[in-house]
Amino acid sequence: MEQQRSEHPSLVKPLRCIVKLGGAAITCKNDLEKINEAHLEMVATQLTQVMISGSSSSKVPGMDWSKRNGMSGISINVENYQELSESSSFIVVHGAGSFGHFQASQSGVHKGGLERPIVKAGFVATRISVSTLNLEVVRALAREGLPSLGLSPFSCGWSTRGKNIASANLSTVAKALDSGFIPVLHGDAVLDELQGCTILSGDVIIRHLAEHLEPDYVVFLTDVSGVYDRPPTEPDAVLLKEIAVREDGSWSVVKPPLEDNHVKMTAAAHDTTGGMETKISEAAIIAKLGIDVYIVQAATTHSIRALSGDLKGNIPDDWLGTAIRFAG
Amino acid sequence: MEQQRSEHPSLVKPLRCIVKLGGAAITCKNDLEKINEAHLEMVATQLTQVMISGSSSSKVPGMDWSKRNGMSGISINVENYQELSESSSFIVVHGAGSFGHFQASQSGVHKGGLERPIVKAGFVATRISVSTLNLEVVRALAREGLPSLGLSPFSCGWSTRGKNIASANLSTVAKALDSGFIPVLHGDAVLDELQGCTILSGDVIIRHLAEHLEPDYVVFLTDVSGVYDRPPTEPDAVLLKEIAVREDGSWSVVKPPLEDNHVKMTAAAHDTTGGMETKISEAAIIAKLGIDVYIVQAATTHSIRALSGDLKGNIPDDWLGTAIRFAG
Repeated sequence: MEQQRSEHPSLVKPLRCIVKLGGAAITCKNDLEKINEAHLEMVATQLTQVMISGSSSSKVPGMDWSKRNGMSGISINVENYQELSESSSFIVVHGAGSFGHFQASQSGVHKGGLERPIVKAGFVATRISVSTLNLEVVRALAREGLPSLGLSPFSCGWSTRGKNIASANLSTVAKALDSGFIPVLHGDAVLDELQGCTILSGDVIIRHLAEHLEPDYVVFLTDVSGVYDRPPTEPDAVLLKEIAVREDGSWSVVKPPLEDNHVKMTAAAHDTTGGMETKISEAAIIAKLGIDVYIVQAATTHSIRALSGDLKGNIPDDWLGTAIRFAG
Repeated sequence: MEQQRSEHPSLVKPLRCIVKLGGAAITCKNDLEKINEAHLEMVATQLTQVMISGSSSSKVPGMDWSKRNGMSGISINVENYQELSESSSFIVVHGAGSFGHFQASQSGVHKGGLERPIVKAGFVATRISVSTLNLEVVRALAREGLPSLGLSPFSCGWSTRGKNIASANLSTVAKALDSGFIPVLHGDAVLDELQGCTILSGDVIIRHLAEHLEPDYVVFLTDVSGVYDRPPTEPDAVLLKEIAVREDGSWSVVKPPLEDNHVKMTAAAHDTTGGMETKISEAAIIAKLGIDVYIVQAATTHSIRALSGDLKGNIPDDWLGTAIRFAG
């Protein structure tokens, strides 16, 4: 389907997990360029807990040495950095939330046409906005001691062709992982070979990374408990706890048992961002590779269970979220 | 000398100029992570003047649509973006100044050794700091209507081998240029094949870009008038106005006539950043390619003459700065 020119780098250390930080989970959706600081900090704390071995016993020293983070510019206490805390291999990808959407929708970056001044300006404005969020996410993770490096897909040379990924340089991501860092990618404005430019979503990035770097599991952190059979704001909405994906790509709900065992995808199953339909179909493609996908509310006891990988064997009854897995 | 695996992309439109914004010119050097807002704005204004045809007659609409720049998130006035202002092809590279140096020197990122926690943390902290500055430079240029896109060398896949450039993906830079954007690169922390990591300086980036993308001319914007025969703070310091580079790489001062016609490079010729020796040798390599190099004080009448390319034929007597050219 895709015409890819990307390499297929092999990692020295196997990739444990790709985490999506949903835009709605880490920003205040209806407030232009406002970060949900409390949620982002909680997400960073949970990631530290699951990624850095022994991190619960002692505080991991921070890696954001900027003035804004209270640095005087005089000296760093090197003694805090004696102990090597081995972190397992994660990739973080975040959405845009209230960053980037305004700039992209006002100018129509997703529809292309870079020869039009408004689109060109919107492309610049969108990248400024999403880069601002990326820097804040990297900062938040670094403050908790996670060795995070921002990697903009545009800068990495990712481009599309008719909205499919045409070129995606994974070697920088792989090198960063192999050097013990956590690459932090994001939904971005990129060049498109057919229409000039478009928006490359975080979900498409995750699918591409999962296909090529084969993580143990993938976690989508969102602002609702998971995938429901209808909008979660409706009173009778039922959380779909387990979805099985078959070899032919079709999928069905395993838990809970539903009357017609099918969710009407056209309008019924979505979250408030309206993106759940894309999310399930992207997740199903990942699950078909044999990679478990967990969709769960960020900054909860359920999200930490998903992030730790404990769900791989069996989904406990008291876990709230949606697991999407290959049924063979 | 270098073992390069980089491609050699050809540009659709010839590259007019590579501009270096010296760290000392756009930041307050002794004040951690403080931008010299007035200088940066003046630099952006001058770049708009020389790059966008007809920009003196009407205000070019801005491209930073962020909340911090006064956007409400309600709507953009699309009518402001009707007219296509054709910008000529420029690349901007900036130094770090008071961003990045503190983090890099405290941890020894330039000496390598990523297996040491302090170096790993310093690598993360340095990239956060220089990315912060890069975003501010892109914002400042975008506010003046320049279609600027931040491109971090690390993200672009640049790496070194024993401090020489080992890999430098120029295709993203070339594609951005061909799509009418201004790539904005910067000195960055990068991976090194021999010592694990190092600092890749803006000057080395410029030399590499000049060798492969062959601009008409290169301008270094600094915080002093140019290259002097001794520290410019000394009373008898003489500004070297023209330096001729010969085929064998040696160089001599053409204007003004000096007594021994040689500057003692070991300690004599430098600016306050201590980096002028590197700057001349990097500039000489560029000049040897037949590309004029102008070193000039930022945000002055002299810098705009250098940026416009008017000096290519002849250096007027009233121009203050240092021109470094190939003498054949």
